[in-house]
Amino acid sequence: MSANCIFCKIAAGKFGGPPVYQDEDVTAFRDINPQAPRHLLLIPNKHIASVSEASADDQALLGKLMLTAAQIAKQEGIDDNGYRLVINSGAHGGQTVFHLHVHILGGRKMTWPPG
Amino acid sequence: MSANCIFCKIAAGKFGGPPVYQDEDVTAFRDINPQAPRHLLLIPNKHIASVSEASADDQALLGKLMLTAAQIAKQEGIDDNGYRLVINSGAHGGQTVFHLHVHILGGRKMTWPPG
Repeated sequence: MSANCIFCKIAAGKFGGPPVYQDEDVTAFRDINPQAPRHLLLIPNKHIASVSEASADDQALLGKLMLTAAQIAKQEGIDDNGYRLVINSGAHGGQTVFHLHVHILGGRKMTWPPG
Repeated sequence: MSANCIFCKIAAGKFGGPPVYQDEDVTAFRDINPQAPRHLLLIPNKHIASVSEASADDQALLGKLMLTAAQIAKQEGIDDNGYRLVINSGAHGGQTVFHLHVHILGGRKMTWPPG
């Protein structure tokens, strides 16, 4: 856990309400500024600042993040119509919280380009 | 390899030019309709229709896809300023080729919402 990281606090149950999904590796919760009818964030419980900061040791964790994102889409009922996963890294990506997170967006047709 | 899948053909070297990056698990190439100064696609060489179709057996492969995306961003010189990774699943996601692929976009400030 990284001091002063809001997503670490959420993963530790020290901020926000009950997560939408949580296990020993990952936590999912709703984006407070949703950009689609369903907009969730999925994070590793471990503090990794961004996907660029992930190391080879994180490979299984990153794979689990992808599998869990798909599972949450199913749970949220957006799997059949489809959804978009977005990971922002750094300023040009639009990353605002420096704890790796996957945006899961669905419930409407997402447009192109993706921002 | 899935018959008639264009991305399987690219991974097998039977379509398109030399890939930007390739190893035994993944292949990266440039999007033919770029939405940013740098816009690449990264695919598993194995045919997986979408992230929703991935199974637990694919966990390591999905993790490698994430690590390789970050590595390619570095190689493309977009790592310092930042970049966005996008995975579309199904119609609402805007998926058009049904072979799992990660969009890597950088070289400009990406906007919000992501489509």
